[in-house]
Amino acid sequence: MEFSHCIGILPGFPALQEEAMSALFKREKVKQLIRQRVPIVAWLPSYDRTDFICDLIAGVTVGLTVIPQALAYSTLAGLEPQYGLYSAFMGCFMYIIFGGCKDITIGPTALMSLMTYDQVKGKNKDFAVLLCFLTGCVQMLFGILNLGVLLDFISVPVSIGFTSATSVIIIVSQLKGLLGLKFSSNSFLDNVTQVFKNLPNTRFGDTFLGFSCILALLLLRKIKDLPIKEPADGRSSVRKVLKRALWLISVSRNILVVIACSIIAVCFEATGNQPPFQLIGTVQSGLPSLSLPPFSTTLNNQTLSFTDMVSELGSSIILVPVIAILGNVAIAKTFATGDSVDATQEMIGLGMSNLAACLTSAYPVDGSFSRSAVNHASGVRTPMGGLYTGVLVLLALSWLTPYFYFIPKATLAAVIICAVIFMIEYEVVTPMWRSSRKDLVPTFTTFAVCLAWGVEYGILAGVGVNIVMLLYPSARPTIQVQRAMTKSGRSYLMITPSNSLYFPAVDFIRTTVGKAGSQEGRSAVVVDCKFVLGADFTAAKGIAALIDDFKRRSQPIYFYNLRPGVIEVFKGASLEEFIHFGDEDELDEYITKEYVLIQSSKSGGGDEELVPLSTFQGDQERGCTG
Amino acid sequence: MEFSHCIGILPGFPALQEEAMSALFKREKVKQLIRQRVPIVAWLPSYDRTDFICDLIAGVTVGLTVIPQALAYSTLAGLEPQYGLYSAFMGCFMYIIFGGCKDITIGPTALMSLMTYDQVKGKNKDFAVLLCFLTGCVQMLFGILNLGVLLDFISVPVSIGFTSATSVIIIVSQLKGLLGLKFSSNSFLDNVTQVFKNLPNTRFGDTFLGFSCILALLLLRKIKDLPIKEPADGRSSVRKVLKRALWLISVSRNILVVIACSIIAVCFEATGNQPPFQLIGTVQSGLPSLSLPPFSTTLNNQTLSFTDMVSELGSSIILVPVIAILGNVAIAKTFATGDSVDATQEMIGLGMSNLAACLTSAYPVDGSFSRSAVNHASGVRTPMGGLYTGVLVLLALSWLTPYFYFIPKATLAAVIICAVIFMIEYEVVTPMWRSSRKDLVPTFTTFAVCLAWGVEYGILAGVGVNIVMLLYPSARPTIQVQRAMTKSGRSYLMITPSNSLYFPAVDFIRTTVGKAGSQEGRSAVVVDCKFVLGADFTAAKGIAALIDDFKRRSQPIYFYNLRPGVIEVFKGASLEEFIHFGDEDELDEYITKEYVLIQSSKSGGGDEELVPLSTFQGDQERGCTG
Repeated sequence: MEFSHCIGILPGFPALQEEAMSALFKREKVKQLIRQRVPIVAWLPSYDRTDFICDLIAGVTVGLTVIPQALAYSTLAGLEPQYGLYSAFMGCFMYIIFGGCKDITIGPTALMSLMTYDQVKGKNKDFAVLLCFLTGCVQMLFGILNLGVLLDFISVPVSIGFTSATSVIIIVSQLKGLLGLKFSSNSFLDNVTQVFKNLPNTRFGDTFLGFSCILALLLLRKIKDLPIKEPADGRSSVRKVLKRALWLISVSRNILVVIACSIIAVCFEATGNQPPFQLIGTVQSGLPSLSLPPFSTTLNNQTLSFTDMVSELGSSIILVPVIAILGNVAIAKTFATGDSVDATQEMIGLGMSNLAACLTSAYPVDGSFSRSAVNHASGVRTPMGGLYTGVLVLLALSWLTPYFYFIPKATLAAVIICAVIFMIEYEVVTPMWRSSRKDLVPTFTTFAVCLAWGVEYGILAGVGVNIVMLLYPSARPTIQVQRAMTKSGRSYLMITPSNSLYFPAVDFIRTTVGKAGSQEGRSAVVVDCKFVLGADFTAAKGIAALIDDFKRRSQPIYFYNLRPGVIEVFKGASLEEFIHFGDEDELDEYITKEYVLIQSSKSGGGDEELVPLSTFQGDQERGCTG
Repeated sequence: MEFSHCIGILPGFPALQEEAMSALFKREKVKQLIRQRVPIVAWLPSYDRTDFICDLIAGVTVGLTVIPQALAYSTLAGLEPQYGLYSAFMGCFMYIIFGGCKDITIGPTALMSLMTYDQVKGKNKDFAVLLCFLTGCVQMLFGILNLGVLLDFISVPVSIGFTSATSVIIIVSQLKGLLGLKFSSNSFLDNVTQVFKNLPNTRFGDTFLGFSCILALLLLRKIKDLPIKEPADGRSSVRKVLKRALWLISVSRNILVVIACSIIAVCFEATGNQPPFQLIGTVQSGLPSLSLPPFSTTLNNQTLSFTDMVSELGSSIILVPVIAILGNVAIAKTFATGDSVDATQEMIGLGMSNLAACLTSAYPVDGSFSRSAVNHASGVRTPMGGLYTGVLVLLALSWLTPYFYFIPKATLAAVIICAVIFMIEYEVVTPMWRSSRKDLVPTFTTFAVCLAWGVEYGILAGVGVNIVMLLYPSARPTIQVQRAMTKSGRSYLMITPSNSLYFPAVDFIRTTVGKAGSQEGRSAVVVDCKFVLGADFTAAKGIAALIDDFKRRSQPIYFYNLRPGVIEVFKGASLEEFIHFGDEDELDEYITKEYVLIQSSKSGGGDEELVPLSTFQGDQERGCTG
C-alpha cells in the first residue's frame, strides 16, 4: 500500500474545469471558491451574541490604541495628523469581508509610514494616496497571479536586519520631537548629524515630557505582568477584576498617556500660559471626502501626470506592497496557531483594504503587529472586531479632533519610540552565529544599507546577497571523488556531484571530472548522479563535451543512477552515445568488460599475447568471495 | 582503499604559504606561478626553426584576414577606419607573452565593435579608447580575484540567443552600406525602419557590387572543400599543391575581394570617372601615437571628467569585458582539444591585451573566432604567430593606407555580413526543443530583448530569466509523499523533499509537510532528508515552527538521514527537541514505540486497558516474516 504523489502549487483562483463537468458540480465549485476568497460568507451565518460581545470589547480596545498611534504615525509619514486617522477605518471594514485571520487589524503602521515618508518628503500627500492605490493594485495582482513565491525570497536574516534597521531609523527620526528640536532632514545619517548639531537647542519642556512619557509607557507595559496572588478564600473575584483592570490599563497605555499629557496642556492654556512643550496643533475636523485617488498632481507649480508620479514613486510601487504582505503574513502565522496561513487570501484581503482606503485619502495600510496582539489578547473571535475599531475612529474624527490640538509632540514621539523599540532584534545574533554564521552576512548587509541608503535599497541588497549565497552552490557544487572497486577487484573512480546539473555548474563539473579522470590514467570513471535531480540544455552540451574529452584519451566514462528526466534531456540534445546504468551489477560488468578490452588491445599492440577472458572471470569470483 | 576528497576552487594567485616553508620551496613555488601566469616563459626556451616557419605562415595568413576585417569593423563601431587597424596589433603582441591558447588571435571583432558602437554613437572616439582601458582593468581584476564563476551564469541558451541577435543586428546595420543608402539611426528597430523608408534611394552601383561581393565571398568560402581526387600515379604532388592553393585562396578571400574591388575603383578613377559606388575615403596614414587613454574629453563644447565618462559608459564597463572573456574562453575551449582551459589565464591574457591596446588608441579587443580558426587551420604552433600578424598590420598602417582610399563601402559591408551570417544559430532550436524546451525561454528572451532594446539589456534579461528558472526549484521543490510501513506493520508517512533546506523553500515545505501530516490523522510522519545537503537559519526557524505545529496536535514527527552539518544548523538555532536518526531499524523502533504510547494514552483515557508491549513485538515479527 505505497503511493506517491507530488504536491504542486495550488493556484489562487483555480481555472474552471471542462465544459463536460455538470452544472451542479460547477455551482458547488463556485460556492467553494467564494467561501475561500470571501471568508465572511463562511463565518457570518454562525455569528452569535457571544461573538458580538467579544468582538465589541476587542474592537473598542484596539480602537483606543489606534487613535494615538494613527496621529503619531502620520507625522512619521510626513503628513498632517488627520491622515493617520483617515487610514485607520476603511482597511478595517474591508478586512471584515476579505480577511483570512481574525486577529489582524488593518491600519497605519510604523513601517508603512516610514516607507511612505520616503515618497512624500519634498512632495505632497497626493503621492501617499496614489501609493496606497498602487499598493492595493499590486497586492491584488500578487494574489490573483499567486506570486506569493516572491515573498519566500525574503529570508529570516534579511527580515531581521530590515525590521531592526527600520526601528533604529524610526527612533532616530523621533528624537527631533522628543527633544523639541526644529530642523528638516532627508535621511537617517542626515538626521543623526542634525540631532547632534542641534543638541544645544534642546528644549527642556519637551525633553522632560518625552522621557517621562517613555518611562510611563514602559512601566504601564509591565503592570499587566504584576504577580497578583490568587488568595485561598472566595474573594478571588476582586483580584480577578483587579488583574483585568491592570491588563486594560496596560493595553490602553497609549491613549491614557496621551490624554494625561493633553490635560496638562489644557491646564496650561486654561491658566493663560504657553505650555513649555510643543503641541501638534490643529487637526482638520470631520470625515474625509470619498474620492478617487489623485491621478495627477501639482508640485512646484508643475503639473505631474500619472506616469510622472509613477516614475517618481519608482521601486516603492513593488516594495511597499511586498513588505506589507510580508508583514501581514508574518502576523497571520503568529496567531494562526496550528492552522496553515493562506498567503493568497492575505494578499487579497490587504489589496482590497488598500484599494478601499485610498478612496478616503489614506496612505498605505497594513496589519499592525502591536494592535493585532492587543486584538488577540482582548479575545477577538471574528474579523468583525474591525467594525468597532473603524467606527471608533470615525467617531473620533467627527467629534474629538478639536481636543487633538492639545496633544504634545513629545508624547507622540514617545508613543512611536515605545512601539518600535522592541523590534530591534539584537538577541537573535547569538543563535544565528551558532546555527549558520554566514547568514549574518545578509542580516548585516540589510541593516547597514537600510541605514546608509534607505530601507528599499537595504532590502534589495539583502535579498541580492542572499540569492548570491543561494546560487553559489549551484555554480560550485561539492564534488566527491572516491576510488572504488568492483566485486571482481577492478578499481575505478567514483565521482559524485552534490547538485543538479544546471548551467552554472556545468563547466566546473566538466573541468573537475576531467582533471580527476586524467590523474587516474585510463581507469574507468563512474559519475554517480544520485543527487542530480534535473538537467538543462547547457548541461547536456557540457556532458557531451566531457564524453568527447574522455573518448579522445580512450578512457571509459559511465553514468550511474541517472533519472529518466535527465536521460531525456541528454538524449534530446543529440547525446546518444553515453553509457548509463542504474544497478551495481551492471556497473561491475561494464568496468570488468572495459578492463578486458583495454588489456587485450594493449597486449595486441605489444607482444601478441591475448589475455584470456576466463582469467578475469576467475578474478571476478575471487573478488566475490574474498 | 577508499578515499574521498572535495575539490574546491583553485585560486588564480594562490596565497603564499607559511614562513616555515623553506626558501627553496618558496622559489620553486614562485617559478611555478610565473610559468603558469606568464606562459611564454614555459614555451619560449624550446622554440625552434619549425615552430618559427609554421608560426610565420599562420601569422601572415591571419594578417591578410585581419586587415580588411579591421577596416570593416571600425566602421561598424562608428569609428574612422584606421581605428580598426590601431586595435589589431598590440593585443597580438601582449597575447604572445600572456596568452594561454596558441590558436587565439586578438584584435577587433564584430561583437566588440557593435558593443563599442553603442557607447560611441553621438559621442567621440575617446569613449571607445577609455572603454578599452576599463575593459582591460576589469578583465585583470576578474583574473586576479578569480571571478570566472560569473561567466558560468551565462548559459548556452542565453549565449545562443545573444550571438544570433548580434548577428542579425550587425547584418541589418550593414544594409545601409550594402545598398548605398545614407541615413543615421540609433537602434536596430530604427535601422530596419530607415532601410525600408530609404529603399527608393537604393543606389544600383553599391547594391550590385555588394551582392556580387557576398556571392564571391560565399563561393570562395566553399572552394577549399572542392573534392580534388588523389590520382593513382605519382603526380599527386600537383594536386596537393592545387588543394593547398585553393585553401589559401579560400582563407584569404576577404583581402582578395577587397583588392579586386579596389582595383575596379582605381580603374574608374584612372579613366577620370566617378566610381558608381561609395568609397571609404581617406584613411589616416601612419602609426598611432603612444599615449595614455583619455581620462577626460570634450563633447558638445562641454568638458567631461573621468567620472562623467564612466557614468556615460554605464553597465558596459562590466558587460563588455565579461562578453569578451566569454568569447575568448569559448574559442580556447574549441581549440584546446582535450586540455582543460585555464579561464583565469584567459582573463589575464585578454586584460593585458586591452591594457596595452588602449595605449595605441584601440577600442576593446577580443579573440576573433573566425581568425582563430584560420590560425588553427594554418598550423600555428605557438602564440608567436601573433607577432607576424601584428607586424603585418603595422606595415599596412605605414605604407598601405593611401590605397585603402579606394576600398568600396559595399565591399566592406559584404565582408562583415559574410563573417557573421553563420553565427545565427537557428538549427539549435530543434535539439533544444527535444532536450529541455523550457531552455528556449531564455534564448528567445535574450534574442528579443537584444533586438528591441540593445545587446546589453538582452544579455541581462536572459541571465535574469535563467536565474529565476534556476531559483524556482529551490523555492518550490518537489516533495514526495509516500505511505510506508515499518517491518512491524505500523504505517507511517514518509515525506522526501527533493532539495536543500534554504530560505525560499522553507515555508513551502512547512506548509506541505503540515498539510500532508494533518490529512493522516495522528500517524507518525518521517521527513527523509537524504537530498537535504545544507540548511540555513531560516530553515532552522521553519523546522522549529513545523515541530511546534506537530506537537500542538500530538502527532510525532521524525527526521531521517540528516547530515551532520544540517543537524548543527538546527541545534544552533535552539532547536533541541527534534528527533532524528540515520538507520531504518531505529526508525522502526521509534514508530513502534510511539504507536504504543499513543495506544496506551488512548486506552488510559478510555477504558483503562493497557495494550501489552509484547503484542507489538509479535506484530513486529509477523511484519518481518510476512
